[in-house]
Amino acid sequence: MKKLSEIKAFGGIQGVYSHFSESTNCDMTFGLFLPEEAKYNPVPVLWYLSGLTCTHENAMSKSGAQNWAAEQGIALVFPDTSPRGQAIADDDAFDLGQGAGFYVNATQNPWAQNFNMWDYITVSLPELLFNNFSLDRNRQSITGHSMGGHGALTIALTLPDTFCSVSAFSPITNPTNSDWGVKQFNAYLGKDKTTWQAHDASILMKEKGFPGPILIDQGSSDQFWDLLKPEALIDAIIERKQAATFRIQEGYDHSYFFISSFMEEHISFHADALYR
Amino acid sequence: MKKLSEIKAFGGIQGVYSHFSESTNCDMTFGLFLPEEAKYNPVPVLWYLSGLTCTHENAMSKSGAQNWAAEQGIALVFPDTSPRGQAIADDDAFDLGQGAGFYVNATQNPWAQNFNMWDYITVSLPELLFNNFSLDRNRQSITGHSMGGHGALTIALTLPDTFCSVSAFSPITNPTNSDWGVKQFNAYLGKDKTTWQAHDASILMKEKGFPGPILIDQGSSDQFWDLLKPEALIDAIIERKQAATFRIQEGYDHSYFFISSFMEEHISFHADALYR
Repeated sequence: MKKLSEIKAFGGIQGVYSHFSESTNCDMTFGLFLPEEAKYNPVPVLWYLSGLTCTHENAMSKSGAQNWAAEQGIALVFPDTSPRGQAIADDDAFDLGQGAGFYVNATQNPWAQNFNMWDYITVSLPELLFNNFSLDRNRQSITGHSMGGHGALTIALTLPDTFCSVSAFSPITNPTNSDWGVKQFNAYLGKDKTTWQAHDASILMKEKGFPGPILIDQGSSDQFWDLLKPEALIDAIIERKQAATFRIQEGYDHSYFFISSFMEEHISFHADALYR
Repeated sequence: MKKLSEIKAFGGIQGVYSHFSESTNCDMTFGLFLPEEAKYNPVPVLWYLSGLTCTHENAMSKSGAQNWAAEQGIALVFPDTSPRGQAIADDDAFDLGQGAGFYVNATQNPWAQNFNMWDYITVSLPELLFNNFSLDRNRQSITGHSMGGHGALTIALTLPDTFCSVSAFSPITNPTNSDWGVKQFNAYLGKDKTTWQAHDASILMKEKGFPGPILIDQGSSDQFWDLLKPEALIDAIIERKQAATFRIQEGYDHSYFFISSFMEEHISFHADALYR
C-alpha cells in the first residue's frame, strides 16, 4: 500500500492511498477518513460508494461527510468506482467502463479481467483496510449515491451479517429494468438475465429483505428519476413490509448539494446502528 | 444578469449567475447561497473571497459553508477571483492574471482594463446583489482564504462601515513583503510601492485597526506559511492592542479540509456580529 496524501481534517486524518488489488488486477486508489478516536481504539466504518463518473475524490471533497463522521467517531471509506488505467478496458460512453463499474464482477470480455468491483468492495479492500488501519470489522455500515446507492443496497442485502445498516441517496433501484443497468449488465454480465438478478436492489429487497435499518433519500426534482426508478424499490419495501425509511425530499436534484444537505442525518442514522 | 443554475441545498437555493460588470469590463460569474429565510425577509450576507486559481465554484462545492449559513439564516456570496475570458489578459504563471486578481484595481498595462477586482467586490457586485436578491445591505460580513483572506482583510479594514465582522483562513497577510504580493503588485500597481500599502493587511491593521470582531485561523502545517507571513499580522494586532482572535490550528495545512474543519466556527462568529 502506498500513501498518496494525509491531511488533517476535523481533528482526524483524510488520507488517500493506492494499492494493488487482486480482484481488479490493477492498482486502485481510495480515500479513508479516520476520526481522532482511531488513535486510541478501532472505530466503526461507514462505506460510501460513489456514482457514475466519480473517483474516490468526489464525495471526499464535496459531501461534507467528514464533519459528521468526526462528531460520531466513525471512519469513512471512499473507494473508486472502477479499475482505471491506460491498460484497462474502457468505453467512450460515460456510463460504461472506467468510472462505471456498477459494483459487479464482470464475466464478459473485455471487462472480466479487471471489472470485478463486487469482489474489490467486499473482499480485497476490506482485507487491506482491516489489516492496516484502526477499524472495527464488526461495526460496518454502507451508503452511496446513484450507482453507488445501487452498490450499497445490493451489497448490504447480500451480506446482511457484514453491515449493521444501509442507506442511499437517489439510488439506481431497478437496474434490470432501466437504461442505467440493462446496458451495463449486458456488457459486464452477458445476455443471461438470470445473472442480473443478484444485482437489482428491488429484486433482492423482495426476495430477502434486510435485518437492519434502511434509509433512502430521493430528491423530487431529480433529473434522473426515470432511470433511478424509486417506485420499484418502494414497491418491494411495501410488498415485504420491510422496516425502512423512504423519503422524497421536495425540490432537491441529483447533485452533491442534495447529498450534503442530508449527510448529517445519514451519518446519525448509521451511528445509531453502529453504536447499538 | 443571467441565471446559470439554481439548485436546492439545505432548504435554500445555491445559485450561479453571470452578469456584465463595468468594473472589470467583462462578464463575471458568481455563486450565491440564499437560505430559506430569504423568501420572507432580506437576510444578512457573508462574502467569501477565494484564493489563487479558484473560481466562484471551489468554496461553493468544498467548504461546507451552506450547511451553517442555512442554520444561521445567512446568505453566502462566492465571487470569482478575477476577470476571465479569451480576450482578457493572462500570464502563464498560476499566480498572476486570470485566477489571481489579488483584489486590487490594476493601473498598469495589460491589466488595467479588466483587473479591477477591488471595485468589482466593493461596487459592482454589491449593486447587482442588493438590487436583485433578498439581501440586507446593512448586515454584511466578509471572510476568505489565502489570497481571499488578504482580500477580506484589506477590504474590511478599508470599509469598516460596510462590514460588521471579518475573518480569514490562512490569509496572505503581508503581500508587500512576500513573493505572494510583490510580483503581483509590481505587475498590477507598478513600481511605486506607496500604492501597495493600501493592499497590505498588516500595514492597514497597524494604521487603522478594525472596529468589529476579527477571527483568523492559520494551520501550523500550512505548506505556504513562509508566503502567508502570519507573524506580520499578529505583530500588527499586538502593536495596536487590536481586539482579535488569532488561532494557530495544530497540524492543519492550506487545503479546503482545513477550511471546512473550521467553517462552522467562522459562520457562528459572523452570525454573532450580524445579529447583534
